[in-house]
Amino acid sequence: QRRPKKDAPHEMELQCTLEELYKGTTRRMKISHKRLDASGAQRQEQEILEINVRPGWKAGTKITFQEKGDENPGRIASDIVFVLQEKPHPLFKRDGNDLIYTHRLPLADALCGSVVQLQTLDGRPLTVPVHDPVSPQQEKVVQGEGMPVTKHPGQRGNLRIRFDVLFPRQLNDGQKAMLRQVLPTH
Amino acid sequence: QRRPKKDAPHEMELQCTLEELYKGTTRRMKISHKRLDASGAQRQEQEILEINVRPGWKAGTKITFQEKGDENPGRIASDIVFVLQEKPHPLFKRDGNDLIYTHRLPLADALCGSVVQLQTLDGRPLTVPVHDPVSPQQEKVVQGEGMPVTKHPGQRGNLRIRFDVLFPRQLNDGQKAMLRQVLPTH
Repeated sequence: QRRPKKDAPHEMELQCTLEELYKGTTRRMKISHKRLDASGAQRQEQEILEINVRPGWKAGTKITFQEKGDENPGRIASDIVFVLQEKPHPLFKRDGNDLIYTHRLPLADALCGSVVQLQTLDGRPLTVPVHDPVSPQQEKVVQGEGMPVTKHPGQRGNLRIRFDVLFPRQLNDGQKAMLRQVLPTH
Repeated sequence: QRRPKKDAPHEMELQCTLEELYKGTTRRMKISHKRLDASGAQRQEQEILEINVRPGWKAGTKITFQEKGDENPGRIASDIVFVLQEKPHPLFKRDGNDLIYTHRLPLADALCGSVVQLQTLDGRPLTVPVHDPVSPQQEKVVQGEGMPVTKHPGQRGNLRIRFDVLFPRQLNDGQKAMLRQVLPTH
């Protein structure tokens, strides 16, 4: 007797927001698959699969549900595989376990100091004062304010603040003369 | 009677500088290949292949010399294929037909104006005055000072100047107060 074979797995996307991946969440996915009844006839059935999204999961993570795909005569029902996708976030970009936040500020603030105010992915206000001049090449790192690390609960990546410095479009001769006096020439 | 088959082509790198690709050049490549003599014995022979590098050729361009590879008994000699590689240049980066030049300058010059002086790939001095403030996000485009376009002789891409602005590391309270006065707040 031949062993029945399994059909190829059926892949589906699981779209998660950064907030969901930060805190973890439970997602219920309604799926529809063909099942064989006692008489051998194929019927469409619906089922709800529960996915326990753990804090820190990354795009590409695969969650397999054994034999939850279509069941065809003489075959083992295929698997359903959910592939995690990260929805783009309006403020944060993810880089591994780190989060990158780009702070837009006028040149005067970049040179003379400012305060970066933002809300973390779990809704806490975060205030980061900046005293020394910051340049567009620089990153200010806030330790432990990144994404959770799935394999090491309690551990978190860093928040890296980048600066998008708005330069003045035009300056008059008086302003230029003053700036030449004040700014170092190095 | 079977037609003799050709062995797979033999690929070799042809490293060119941006200067060579800008002006065009002739490269003589000494190769060594096995040849069959009248008695059918295989002998190592040397030959010089001349490559006419045309202005504007891009990395990946392939130059084929028919049957200049090894000749094996009962086979047609293989081809030699040179694959053009671009040597990194210390000052210019190539982007298609454009050249990118990064000009490093202190913040005072970025705000108050400066002159970009450089030498083109064919050795001409080029002077580009900059009056308005320039920011690291900006490019200043000099029309027609890029790489030649092989398919359209006489046509050239653009030179795109980028600015690497050096910010002061520290400023004292007096400097900061002055800057807050002079710089626009927008």
